[in-house]
Parts: sequence; structure tokens; C-alpha cells
Amino acid sequence: MKLVILGGGFGGLRLARLLNNKPGIEITLIDRFNYHQFQPLFYQVATAALDASNISFPLRKAFHNSKNVRIRMAEVERIDTAAKQVITNEDSYAYDYLVIATGASTNFFGNKNLEQHAFPMKSTVEALQLRHKLIQNFEDALHANDATELQRLMNIVVVGGGPTGVELSGAVAEMKKYVLPKDYPELDFSKMNIYLLEGTGKTLAAMSERSSNNSLNYLQRLGVTVKTNALLQDYNGEQVTLKDGTIIPSKLVIWAAGIRGNIPAGIDPSLIARGNRIKVDAFNFVQGMNNVFAIGDIAYMENEAFPNGHPQVAPVAIQQATLLAKNLLHLRKGEKAVAFQYNDKGAMATVGRNLAVVDMPIPIAIGTKLHFGGFFAWLIWMGLHLMLILGVKNRFFVFVNWLYNYVTYDQSLRLIFKEFYRKEEAKS
Amino acid sequence: MKLVILGGGFGGLRLARLLNNKPGIEITLIDRFNYHQFQPLFYQVATAALDASNISFPLRKAFHNSKNVRIRMAEVERIDTAAKQVITNEDSYAYDYLVIATGASTNFFGNKNLEQHAFPMKSTVEALQLRHKLIQNFEDALHANDATELQRLMNIVVVGGGPTGVELSGAVAEMKKYVLPKDYPELDFSKMNIYLLEGTGKTLAAMSERSSNNSLNYLQRLGVTVKTNALLQDYNGEQVTLKDGTIIPSKLVIWAAGIRGNIPAGIDPSLIARGNRIKVDAFNFVQGMNNVFAIGDIAYMENEAFPNGHPQVAPVAIQQATLLAKNLLHLRKGEKAVAFQYNDKGAMATVGRNLAVVDMPIPIAIGTKLHFGGFFAWLIWMGLHLMLILGVKNRFFVFVNWLYNYVTYDQSLRLIFKEFYRKEEAKS
Repeated sequence: MKLVILGGGFGGLRLARLLNNKPGIEITLIDRFNYHQFQPLFYQVATAALDASNISFPLRKAFHNSKNVRIRMAEVERIDTAAKQVITNEDSYAYDYLVIATGASTNFFGNKNLEQHAFPMKSTVEALQLRHKLIQNFEDALHANDATELQRLMNIVVVGGGPTGVELSGAVAEMKKYVLPKDYPELDFSKMNIYLLEGTGKTLAAMSERSSNNSLNYLQRLGVTVKTNALLQDYNGEQVTLKDGTIIPSKLVIWAAGIRGNIPAGIDPSLIARGNRIKVDAFNFVQGMNNVFAIGDIAYMENEAFPNGHPQVAPVAIQQATLLAKNLLHLRKGEKAVAFQYNDKGAMATVGRNLAVVDMPIPIAIGTKLHFGGFFAWLIWMGLHLMLILGVKNRFFVFVNWLYNYVTYDQSLRLIFKEFYRKEEAKS
Repeated sequence: MKLVILGGGFGGLRLARLLNNKPGIEITLIDRFNYHQFQPLFYQVATAALDASNISFPLRKAFHNSKNVRIRMAEVERIDTAAKQVITNEDSYAYDYLVIATGASTNFFGNKNLEQHAFPMKSTVEALQLRHKLIQNFEDALHANDATELQRLMNIVVVGGGPTGVELSGAVAEMKKYVLPKDYPELDFSKMNIYLLEGTGKTLAAMSERSSNNSLNYLQRLGVTVKTNALLQDYNGEQVTLKDGTIIPSKLVIWAAGIRGNIPAGIDPSLIARGNRIKVDAFNFVQGMNNVFAIGDIAYMENEAFPNGHPQVAPVAIQQATLLAKNLLHLRKGEKAVAFQYNDKGAMATVGRNLAVVDMPIPIAIGTKLHFGGFFAWLIWMGLHLMLILGVKNRFFVFVNWLYNYVTYDQSLRLIFKEFYRKEEAKS
């Protein structure tokens, strides 16, 4: 059985690992990067608390000595479902079964200005670019010609009050509090403003009332200016205009207010659902197909509990991959497949030192959740993320970095590694 | 006293640290990067054994709470010695005293082809670019159309048998031996060749006969094809042509066969000596000037012991900076300055696991040196480099990475973080 998996994220990588060295299955795992990205910690790479390598795991290393998994680093150009082929910028790959696990990327909702000027944070490289820009703006502030330009350089606007926006603005607020004034004694950091814009009435709207309120409380305590019911109208690289006419001068806007599925070309438009996702049935079969699956953020699976599809979070991708691995083995033996059922293990977000929120279902009391915040939630958040990071060395380095940052109040990775890829490209 | 220091390398940074918080001296330290680079370990960044951050120290962090040192990240455009000003791409800086510590970069000796196609390794960013190219070539090898193309992708040519070339080719040979076959089981690594080309008759020619011989011996043991008396004629990106007509197909040539001083514009041509260095007297005063100094790789200081100038190595830069700090304090008090005398503490290079060479002068027997190689030399090499790296956390992370690499035979940082700076540039 030839199995091609598109994407080495939480879903694709988990599936390949579960089928690693299973006889009779030849797997090709295709990704445009040569590493797995641990998305939940992108914001810490962006705020110089972690190294990009700490949250990246080389895909090839995960399959050393594998008999049946082959990795290809390539961009998927299209899928030919009739010919059962994946066409990439490098080669074509024939499949018996195809799993689309291409995830999601930033949705600018068609706003070209936003796409050109705002920074997304949906990949490790984008997190690095954001880090560089964040630091470069303070370097530039030292040379600012006038007060207006200085203010633009010192204002940071984060758009989107979901976990990414909350975690990022909290981390930037801590940089402002603890480390930036030491780095730039010439600048007056009382002039630095961090805005978090959220279109709905609250931050972390998908979490419990209590966690949502806590997060707002924590953000304000850290000095983040949270604007709820704030809708962005436009951003021209110099200032943000809100729908209500408010203008915020800023040279750095981070857009964390929407994602859309990365649908490869060749998928019938009738199969595309809201959020640019692919409609799948309860077995993750793409609707109407018996040899193509979609899992994780790219999959749109509707059922009674989730009438608008499942949440686009890592646990769904991991659980779908785990079930799909079993179902593919069932399939080979002619056994019946099992339908997916999401086991919601709760949600959490961290805002800053000793400040996190956790919603956790109580196993013995179905339908109710435990909510807690503060230091204990923060410890749980850290422990769980450490467990989930791939690779013993990465786990250790993340732990040491966290310990170091906690003790010294200093994220020490404020390095601008500008890579001149024009030159590199000219050479390749 | 207004002191402007150009360059945060071994010399410039040492000088600024020694004068940190000294009353009456206002220091501006200008560098195009915002971090100090630990050059001796570039080759380990290039071969995925260390993170770029492990050998980079944020300049601003070195001067937290400093009363008199200010950092500026800028490109020096020229020096106006008449007006006593440094003009950068950002601002101009007036000085009473100027210290040029701009170091050296790769010398392609005017060969445009080489400059376009060969990879230099004289900065952290260049080491990262080299790492990416090294890995990308094996990814490309999986898609190679024919045997010739495959061979080009699997041959690596290192030019220059000094410490950089020896250490780099040794490290690549260990990747070939231990880790690449596991990453790319589809490729036949008996076809991978690592060439080290050296123009003179021996590798590490600046070291003792015994160390030089040892290094050759170790390289051959690791499977590096060392070609001495081999002069490169040209490189077109596809193949290397030697002066004797030999052709080596290769898509990756690393040029470590020459450096030239980074002389800022505004220095009188009559002051420029061999290697594009600035002539200085025994006090590191630029010849004929009484307020401009040059130290380290950029300085050309001739004396009886060094008729062709001092070696361009970190200890010279550090010792000149240390003396200059003292002399500047003498100067302020109207005391006499002390002439520079190089205290040669020896030289060392590592070729691979348990394989290094060390030449060390014996303090009680002037003019004689102790030479040793192998495991013991390797331990000394590691200990000394750990001591020299700036920052406790960096030291710790380098140590853990080395321990990990040693135990697992695996450098695990084979990550290609391509940063799309075109996009970033469009945004800034």
C-alpha cells in the first residue's frame, strides 16, 4: 500500500510515526520544510525567549532506521485524484491512499494592505522574522527623526484576542517591563504601547467565562491596552485605522485574527467548507472519496457536537491521526473503520510569568470543567508543553531556557540574524 | 572623552568592556550586527552541531546598566578624520578618539566567479547559509536527474588548509560517517567525496611540523581527500578547475583560503598594508595619527618578531584591546603609553571526535613549544573554547550540545530556516 502524507505537522507526523515500520505500507511524507514545527511556542521564538531550533524537530531524524517512511522536502503543486498522483515542484508521487494534513495559514481576508504590511506568525520562519522586526524597530527608534516616527516605532499592535494574540501581547509586555529598558536606556519606555485588538467582546472567547475574564485581567495587569469590539479597517504600514475611526500609529502590526486551510490545488471546490477547509466524513475520508483523507486543521468534520466543524487545535489533529492510523490498518485487513469522536481535554493559555488560564474537563462529571488561573495554571501549562515537545534535547533546552528566563527576567536571544537569501538564491 | 569603537568582535568588545563605567569616557560601540560573534565555532554552526545563538552574544546585554557605553547597530559608511566624525548609514558620530576594530572578511582575490558561487564562512549568518546549502544539496540529490548531477551534489570542496578549512572538512567528514546515511538512506554515501584543497605543501602550515602532520593524518583517517599544492583556477558553480587542469564536479565550494581587512572608507591609501590592513605603530595608533587606533585583524603592526605583521587571530585582538584600554587611561592622566608585545599562547585546531592538535609554548623554556594531538588535545581544545565563549547560558548550551553530539554521534540541528527577506524588506 502506497501512502502519501502531505504535511509533517501534529497530524501528519503522528500518523507517519504510528505507521512507522508497519509491514506492507510504503509511506512518503512530504513537507515544504525539513522539520516539524511546534506551533504553540511560536510566540516565544518571536519574543526571543526560545531558539527556533528548540521547537523544531528534523523530520528525517524522527525516521532514522525506518524501513518504510521516506521524507521529501517539496512544495505540493497539485493533486491529481483521477491519476492518484501528487505533483510537487520536484517529483510526482503515486499513491494508493493520500492523507492531506497541510494545516492552515494566516487569513488576511483578502486585505492586500494587511497582507503586505502586517506580520503573520504561522510558521517558525515567520516567528523569526517577527523577532527580527520587533528588535529592529527599537534599533531604528534610536535614530528616529521626530516624535511621530518614534511613537510609530514604539507602538505594537496585536490583532486577534485568541490564544496566539493573548500569549504574544503578554510576552511583549514582559519584554517592555523587564528587558527592553535595559537594552535601550536611551528610550523612554513609558511611551511604548502594546495594543491588543479583538473583534468580539472578550479575549479567549473560546474558553470559559472565568478564564476569559482572567486573561483580560492579567493582560491589563501587565500593561497591555486591550480593545474589545475593535475591528480593524486598514493598515498602511504606518498606522492602523479601526472601523470606528480610531487611528493608532504603529510600524509593527501582528495579525493573529484568522486562519484558512492550505488546500492543495486539485480539490473540487464543492468540497471546500468555511475556513477554506475540506469536508470530511466521520472517518476523515474526503467526502465522496474512498482513498483520500484529510486530518487536522485542514479537515472540516461536522457532527452534532460540532455543527461548525471541530476546533483547529493540535489535539484534534493528533487524535484524528491516531484514529486514522488504526483505521488504515483495519482497512488493510478488511475490518470495519471506527468513527472519530473528539475527546476534549480542555484548553489553556499563558499570559506571563505565573499567569495562565486553564479549562480542564472533569472526567467523572461529564460536561463540567475545572477552571483555574495564576501560578498553578502556569505550572500546568509549562509541564504539558514540555511533555508535548518532540525530542529529549529540545525538551531539555526549552526547560533550561525557561528556567533561565524566569530566574534572570531576561530572554537573551535578542539576535537579528538577517539572512541575505538573494545572495543564496543567486548561488543555487 | 568621546571614544567611538567600530566593531564588536574580540578586540572592540573587549575594549568596551574594560572601559565600561570608567568615569570621563563616553563610548559608542558601532557594529552592523547586534551581537558579538564567536568566530572559532562558525564551522560547528555550519555543520549543524551548534545553534547560531549559542555562539552569539547580544551586545546590548553585555552593557546592561552601563553608564557610559552606548551601542549603535549601523553600517559605517566612512570616516572623516579631519572633522573627527564617523558617518554611518544612520547617523554621524563625533569622536575624540576612534578605534577601528572592524576585523577581516573573505578575500576572493578579485575572482568574480568565486565570489558569486563559492560560500564564505566569516560571519554567523554566512555559517547559517552554508548549513542550509549543505543540507539542501542532499535534499536535491534525492531528485537528481542523472549520475553527473548526483555527483555534483554529493561532492564538497573546501579550499584552504588553515584551521577553518581543516576543522570544517573534518566536521563534514563526520557528518558523512555518522549521520547523513541515516538521514538519507536512499543515497549511496560511498559516492560522497570531501576535498580539502591547500595551495602550499601542508595543512595547518602555521603550526608546528608535528601538528601539521597530525592534522593531515587525522583528515585522511576521516576520509577527507586532501590535495596539497593544489591551486584553484576557477569555479563556475558546477565544477572546480585546478591550475593543473584537474576538474572536480561540485555544487558546494567553501572558500576559506584568504581574508582581507574591512577598511572603512576615509583611510588614506598610503596607510594600507598587505592583506588590506591599516598600518599601526607599537601603540596601535594608526601611523601618523594621534587620535585614531586600529586593533586586531584590521591592524598591521610590524616589528622584529613579526616582520609581516601579527597573526590575524583572536588572542592578538584581545591583547591589543587590553593594552589599549590601559593606554587610553594612561593618556587621560598624561602618563606614558606602553608598547604592544604579543604573548603567543600557542595554537590549536580540532579535526574530529577525539582528534585535535595543540602547540603550546612552555613558559620555563622560551622559544620551545609543546606539541600534542589526539584525545588529550581535543579535551584542551574544548575546555579552552568553552572558557572563551561569552555568557554563562551560551557556555552551558554549547557544552550540552557537545555532550549530546558526542554521545549520540548526531548533530541534530539539521534545520533549513529559509528566511524570505524579500518579503521582510518589502515590509520595512
